[in-house]
Amino acid sequence: MSRTHGVSRSVCRIAYQGEPGAWSEVAALRAQGQPRACHDFAATFAALRSGECAFAALPIENSLGGSLYENYDLLGREPVRIVADTYLPIDDRVLGLPGATVAAARRVYSHPLALEECADFFRQHPHLKAAAAYDTAGAAAFVAAAGDPTRLAVASPRAGELHSLVDLGAAVPPGRASITRFLYLSRAEPAAGREPEAAPAWAHGPGPHKTSLVLRLPGRRGALGEVLAACAGQELSVTKIELRPTRQQPFEYQFFLDFEADPAEPRVHAAVAALSASVEEARTLGSYPTI
Amino acid sequence: MSRTHGVSRSVCRIAYQGEPGAWSEVAALRAQGQPRACHDFAATFAALRSGECAFAALPIENSLGGSLYENYDLLGREPVRIVADTYLPIDDRVLGLPGATVAAARRVYSHPLALEECADFFRQHPHLKAAAAYDTAGAAAFVAAAGDPTRLAVASPRAGELHSLVDLGAAVPPGRASITRFLYLSRAEPAAGREPEAAPAWAHGPGPHKTSLVLRLPGRRGALGEVLAACAGQELSVTKIELRPTRQQPFEYQFFLDFEADPAEPRVHAAVAALSASVEEARTLGSYPTI
Repeated sequence: MSRTHGVSRSVCRIAYQGEPGAWSEVAALRAQGQPRACHDFAATFAALRSGECAFAALPIENSLGGSLYENYDLLGREPVRIVADTYLPIDDRVLGLPGATVAAARRVYSHPLALEECADFFRQHPHLKAAAAYDTAGAAAFVAAAGDPTRLAVASPRAGELHSLVDLGAAVPPGRASITRFLYLSRAEPAAGREPEAAPAWAHGPGPHKTSLVLRLPGRRGALGEVLAACAGQELSVTKIELRPTRQQPFEYQFFLDFEADPAEPRVHAAVAALSASVEEARTLGSYPTI
Repeated sequence: MSRTHGVSRSVCRIAYQGEPGAWSEVAALRAQGQPRACHDFAATFAALRSGECAFAALPIENSLGGSLYENYDLLGREPVRIVADTYLPIDDRVLGLPGATVAAARRVYSHPLALEECADFFRQHPHLKAAAAYDTAGAAAFVAAAGDPTRLAVASPRAGELHSLVDLGAAVPPGRASITRFLYLSRAEPAAGREPEAAPAWAHGPGPHKTSLVLRLPGRRGALGEVLAACAGQELSVTKIELRPTRQQPFEYQFFLDFEADPAEPRVHAAVAALSASVEEARTLGSYPTI
């Protein structure tokens, strides 16, 4: 492997789902990474597995839409570690070709959920028709390529810059944008024959820490109640829970649990031990700062 | 309103999503109801609201696929009461026209999730191609109408009977079928100008009882931890939890909680009172038997 290759790897390549200008790319840039586009979420995990990327930025929940269940399932079965998380306001913009105006426009392209969040904008401009696109950044690319100023896109400001579109204003009123929580992931173990990836500076942040666990609950009666009692017994400040079926045994669940805890606190180990006692399998996904 | 109409109403009309032969119709029949087909889940709630149906049968979770989130959201905002639940094995059958055989068949139509559960069947018969249909009962109707014996459907035995199809065997090995939990719902209050609907005999079953609550958690830090601690403090035998965003305030959740409890026990009231103390809003969805 060439020296240059090694250096390029050290700028921390971060896999994300989507295309340039997607909010997941913005999350990758927030971690000062070199973003690497992947077609779908499973492909971002594959990029970690192969060692092609040292990190991945993965949306896990949105303040209005809730959990991204597909990503919980991937997190539950892939050998990864959470090294940080972040909260990104989805400040979508209305974008058009140079010379385009909202008044003269006819159609607005974006992802259906982004269009849903722009309900106020469409009420104020009843002459505009919403048109569904596969994703927000793709809608910006389409509007740029179509060359028709009556077509607008709703996407990130970065998507506008990348496609030389003009910013025609906020798609959602200031302060009303939804917030997406992203996880930054690395491999749980280094790839075969590779040195362990040095954790980037941001993964040593001083901020408040969370600890994330995934517990495999036995299918038997009472198992869920016991785990909840163990959480309460440890006086954990729980911030998120999620139950997802294992798809292996009927009504057998993976229980995802986030709680506020500094990894240096001895009580984290005590809590993990107490929770592990009542389940089939327990895995610490990480103790990490919010960046 | 004619006497006849009154009698027909008393045979307990039950709304369900899908078409005749759907597993939701089988759930409606299990409650000795007169099933009433609805195009989508929202329409089953509309049929309750209008008084057109006294009850609805609603799938809420599957042992392999997990929660039906759309139905949790409807349950959280519609004025309904749970009067019973049931667990239905999804024993899908391979169905064809009279004279059809698996050996001579080419294509098998069904809902994508049903096809996924038949992976073993497709491995044993590699000459068969899986073809996605909108739903299982619709696939049976399509195969019956197409009149081509090389086309098969995977659907309920009832769908086979309704469309005069021949049962060519189990689609999933015995004992390996997934299980869907259905809720039976009524209106929370009778329709304007109507008598309260008499609860059917099955809603007074002696079986084990569950109590279901929906709590609106404030968005503030620590709210989830407090509710979990309250559950543990009341020593509730929790059988299911689900968090869904309210879509009104960022990271504000509706927390759905099922626990085992007979409604006659005074501790149910104590538990509801304790849980209500730490939330914005609490609603008892019902205390009901499993039929």
